[in-house]
This record gives sequence, C-alpha cells and structure tokens, in this order.
Amino acid sequence: MAPKLARVEPVAELEDSAPVDLASLAGIVGYPIRRAQMAVFEDFGRRFAPLDLTPAQYSTLVAIGDNPGRKQSDIGGALGIQRPNFVAMMDELERRGLAERTRSGADRRAYALALTLAGEALLLRARAAQAEQEAAIDRALGSNERRVLIGMLNRLAKLT
Amino acid sequence: MAPKLARVEPVAELEDSAPVDLASLAGIVGYPIRRAQMAVFEDFGRRFAPLDLTPAQYSTLVAIGDNPGRKQSDIGGALGIQRPNFVAMMDELERRGLAERTRSGADRRAYALALTLAGEALLLRARAAQAEQEAAIDRALGSNERRVLIGMLNRLAKLT
Repeated sequence: MAPKLARVEPVAELEDSAPVDLASLAGIVGYPIRRAQMAVFEDFGRRFAPLDLTPAQYSTLVAIGDNPGRKQSDIGGALGIQRPNFVAMMDELERRGLAERTRSGADRRAYALALTLAGEALLLRARAAQAEQEAAIDRALGSNERRVLIGMLNRLAKLT
Repeated sequence: MAPKLARVEPVAELEDSAPVDLASLAGIVGYPIRRAQMAVFEDFGRRFAPLDLTPAQYSTLVAIGDNPGRKQSDIGGALGIQRPNFVAMMDELERRGLAERTRSGADRRAYALALTLAGEALLLRARAAQAEQEAAIDRALGSNERRVLIGMLNRLAKLT
C-alpha cells in the first residue's frame, strides 16, 4: 500500500516559475552558513585551480610556513584535521615536493614539518590568490564587516 | 636528491605545548567559515541522530513541506543540490516512507513532491530539534546578532 500523503491534493497548479519558498530555512543559521561556505570554497577553487591546491592543502602550507619545525600531530590538531586525513595530505604534499617530514629533534618518534623552497614559492603565489579572494569578499560584505563576521564565526566554532 | 628545505634548521626547540600560530588563517574568511560550519553541522548531527536525518535531508523535508506539489527539479535547484545527488536523496526519503513523488499535473514528464504523513510527523520533531540548536546558537552569538550574521552569510553566498 502506498504511504498516505500529508496533503491529498498537491498544489499542482502552482506556477513553475514562482520562487520556491525557503523562508523557514533562511532563518536558521545552519542553512545560510553552508551556502556561504560552499560559495566561498567554489570561489577559492576557481582562484586556486592554477596552483592545484585545495583549501585544506592551502591551510596546511600556511600553518607549516608560519610554524616551521612543529610536530605533524600539533599542526594537524590545530587545524582540526583528523590524523589519517592529515597523514594522507602530508604524503601528497611531500610527493609533490612542497613539504618535508623529518624526525623531530625533541621527540625522535615524531615528525617535524617544514616547507621546501618549492613549497615556500608556491605559498607566496597562494597568499596572493588568497588576498584577491579576501578583496572580493570585502566588496561583497562591505568594509569593516569582515571583523564582525569573523568574530561571530569564531564564537560559532566553539559551539561543540 | 631530497628537496631543499626552505629553512635549513627547523625550530625544533619550540615547546610542544606552545600554541600553533594560525594568525594568518584567522584573518581570512574562508578558514573560520569552514570551522564554524563544521561545528554547526557536528552539533546538528548530535541533535538529529535520533531522527536519522542529515542536514541536506532536513532541508529537503522543510522545502517539500513548505512547497507541496512543486517539481523535484524546482526544489533541488532552489536548494542548490546537484540533480544526481538530489534524485538519490529523494530515492532514500521515498524508501523510508517520508516523501513521495507523483507525476506532475502540469507536466507529466516531471515529478511533483509531497511529504507523507510519516514525513510530516518526523518534520515536526525535526523542527523542534532545530529550534533547540538555534537557541544554542543564539547563546553562543549573543542576542540580535543572528540577523546580522545571516545577512552577511547571504551576501557571501552570492560571491559566485
């Protein structure tokens, strides 16, 4: 037996061109934050395609570049990337000659991370591409709103 | 030959307990928006686990519930979900007896979507869980900031 429909007669006469009512979703934070995050990442993807870097790879290069010699587990943990995923990403960055793992001086069981010269060079180009995206975001947001937005996002990141 | 490291001597004496410096990432919008979106979705996951609904399934039930009889392509398009993914999701919602596709009255080649009674009942429980998450978000953000945040997110969603 077919499940009983909540409304026996669907409103089939609705104009196809009428906008779909998403008002219930527009008022909750989870929906627009996902739409906005996807739009920002799609824009990032277009800008970073020539560099062949994903957002996570870019974040990792920045974190290593700003914290040379730190342990793999510290960098991955600070970025909130799960260990197996982070190990796989470091494998890939090392294979491409952008970063290198060496045994840590303080803890021989741990890996210390550093960028190669090729990694530093790519990171410079990537930071320039990032700056262009930030300028586009500033134009979309209006000036001075970035700081307010980032403050709110950081409070939400502590939700869990 | 091993790739040449950008810094020949990694700063191995750094305290392991010193925080990893992520200041360069904290200033760009793409990083905190992803961290915040993941935190909101993880919180959602915990609240919605008893209902066995993902964020995308919840959005779809809301959109169908608020727009009964609309074409599958209209709902999927308004939600920004790619066609093959949306068809797979509707297969799953139909299999679980929560929604149903019927041939559209206006366009016999198209499917019109509606919730079943079971779908309506689950959606009521889901809206209650959602309201609890929104209250938690309001506590994290401070009152009245939700509207400001959503306005900014909607401007970012038009970045692409």
